[in-house]
Amino acid sequence: MPKVLIVVSSLFGANARLAELTGDVLERLGAEVRLRRVPEVVFADHVQPSAKTESLASAEDLAWADGFVMGSPSHTGLLSASMKAFIDTHHDAAVAGDYLNKTFVAMATSGFAHAGQEGVVGNLNAAAAAWGCLVVPPSTADSTINALGGNPYGLSFVLERGKVSSPESVVWLLEAYFARFIAVTKATATLRSSQTPAE
Amino acid sequence: MPKVLIVVSSLFGANARLAELTGDVLERLGAEVRLRRVPEVVFADHVQPSAKTESLASAEDLAWADGFVMGSPSHTGLLSASMKAFIDTHHDAAVAGDYLNKTFVAMATSGFAHAGQEGVVGNLNAAAAAWGCLVVPPSTADSTINALGGNPYGLSFVLERGKVSSPESVVWLLEAYFARFIAVTKATATLRSSQTPAE
Amino acid sequence: MPKVLIVVSSLFGANARLAELTGDVLERLGAEVRLRRVPEVVFADHVQPSAKTESLASAEDLAWADGFVMGSPSHTGLLSASMKAFIDTHHDAAVAGDYLNKTFVAMATSGFAHAGQEGVVGNLNAAAAAWGCLVVPPSTADSTINALGGNPYGLSFVLERGKVSSPESVVWLLEAYFARFIAVTKATATLRSSQTPAE
Amino acid sequence: MPKVLIVVSSLFGANARLAELTGDVLERLGAEVRLRRVPEVVFADHVQPSAKTESLASAEDLAWADGFVMGSPSHTGLLSASMKAFIDTHHDAAVAGDYLNKTFVAMATSGFAHAGQEGVVGNLNAAAAAWGCLVVPPSTADSTINALGGNPYGLSFVLERGKVSSPESVVWLLEAYFARFIAVTKATATLRSSQTPAE
Repeated sequence: MPKVLIVVSSLFGANARLAELTGDVLERLGAEVRLRRVPEVVFADHVQPSAKTESLASAEDLAWADGFVMGSPSHTGLLSASMKAFIDTHHDAAVAGDYLNKTFVAMATSGFAHAGQEGVVGNLNAAAAAWGCLVVPPSTADSTINALGGNPYGLSFVLERGKVSSPESVVWLLEAYFARFIAVTKATATLRSSQTPAE
Repeated sequence: MPKVLIVVSSLFGANARLAELTGDVLERLGAEVRLRRVPEVVFADHVQPSAKTESLASAEDLAWADGFVMGSPSHTGLLSASMKAFIDTHHDAAVAGDYLNKTFVAMATSGFAHAGQEGVVGNLNAAAAAWGCLVVPPSTADSTINALGGNPYGLSFVLERGKVSSPESVVWLLEAYFARFIAVTKATATLRSSQTPAE
Repeated sequence: MPKVLIVVSSLFGANARLAELTGDVLERLGAEVRLRRVPEVVFADHVQPSAKTESLASAEDLAWADGFVMGSPSHTGLLSASMKAFIDTHHDAAVAGDYLNKTFVAMATSGFAHAGQEGVVGNLNAAAAAWGCLVVPPSTADSTINALGGNPYGLSFVLERGKVSSPESVVWLLEAYFARFIAVTKATATLRSSQTPAE
Repeated sequence: MPKVLIVVSSLFGANARLAELTGDVLERLGAEVRLRRVPEVVFADHVQPSAKTESLASAEDLAWADGFVMGSPSHTGLLSASMKAFIDTHHDAAVAGDYLNKTFVAMATSGFAHAGQEGVVGNLNAAAAAWGCLVVPPSTADSTINALGGNPYGLSFVLERGKVSSPESVVWLLEAYFARFIAVTKATATLRSSQTPAE
């Protein structure tokens, strides 16, 4: 069973909510899931608790996973400072090759259309490249993504007043995408040092 | 045996030379290789013939391959117009999902350090994402890439007076990287419509 | 009177239409305007004529202008091959410093939200940087851009069935933005070799 | 006299050293200079004091300046978490338009060639665009930048064992570039709310 770590930076709760929806979809697809939050480095007084992502992501979580879903809001068109600090914290393990061939997808939100969603996904994909992850882009071949106004480089969502709008549409997209993500994660199991025993 | 298409835009021959070196390495690693050139759309009078890449890349080449190596020089910090035209030409097949889960790596050259190598690799990776390819980034975990001044997002090389300098160093890097590329390509064979029979 | 060159790649006419709207706004703001099209290098049989942009952009147009508006559709998340070929064609003049300190703004369109609008604007801004232009980004401080779902890096528009939807909203945004663009262009007149006589 | 704020994220002192060299050049060119450091949000125990950049950058510094030089090391190919946190901290003033038309240039360092220098400059330029600054890119028309292996999008430097190598070459590049930066900053003085009295 592929193990997927969902790790988000979530100030006002939207990315934590997306993480929950993603976790549910992944579990229905047969994955073992951990939902984690990165430690917040700024605006700490705004952080709102969220049921399933109370725990902070640890080095052990990163080692444990076969695949990563990394989610960040767009702040000034770039990934959040907290997500960046989290990535920096695990730099040495990345250089040591600990994350090679783990599957990866980026997730981004913004309050306005085009307010840096491509930028945030590009930031996260750059980190994934430096880590040697296998980037599994949603692609323009997935018509659900076009229908929902997503982008082909990662999963991206425009919020409505800071909240995930129409969760059922989001779940429709997540189901379409993550079936493929899980298939790639399973197929590449033998290439990872964190290899899970064959099912 | 994984089938790899190497397709380059090469005005003055440097990318064609890199393609040959890459093709030799991939064949030693057990891959079946096709070397192809994209049709040149500008500066056509500068194009120099190159032994192994005489043939132009076709739709059939793209359908045939399990994995892609796409190489472009940096012109004004961006991929070449010819490579862009080639990508556009095959847009409909990409949207139809024909390139889903094929493995991908970008290759870039420039005359000066930092003259857009990251930019070109980023351009090519964006196209790969739109096509739904599995992007296999070199990563900072590969010390040969650091030693040669490459970048973690794709294979990149600084030319000396328009030529590939020290081919033996280049081959050293290519061998280190493509062993992993081939492993990922083999592991994901069952996920592609162009699936080759099990070996 | 500042001289502004609007140069677009337009396959199906949407960018040519935007160019017309932009040209009208710039003329009302007191600029002298040239509307030009780049030569199309692919899909040439799809190209539709457009009243005001019949002429192809020339080296003389680039030399003439105080500021540039460069518009491209998003094809596979990147600028069009034709626009790239146009940029390459004028590489030598750029290296010679002929475009230093000319003002610049990018314009992008796509059929879907997030289908590479940030990417195209980023491509065009990279070319502008290589040319040494002064990039005048719309910014998030402009609430009209937020209202219309634009991005802060350049002017970007989602098409409806390939056409510019609600031109009056587009004009509202263009008027808000180009007043600032013209002010910057006027203020920097003495820094350009193409300096126009003081008014 | 144009007022320039140099604000850097500097963990091991290299960016603080670059800031000093930049400050000296700017003062020789007649600018009034403030050197500031962003608060470090991670790895805080590594931070080394640096003579001239002891003070932390404040909102008042940002309001005071006519132009910004923002410098960050490349950590995992992206700007530092500390610089990102600094940018986020001043989001509200940016949206209010307080930084409109201030001139801007990015500065990046990395330990290896191509290890994300273009990426960091791109990150900083994206923030500058969101803030509505006038981005003044070094450009390929500046032969000193090509000679030193810089990139056309911002000022970038490869460190040697974590230190700025050959400061005299760096100063040569900074002098060539900042003469233009100061000229643009002076020419655009009337466009800023922080307008300094005419000289």
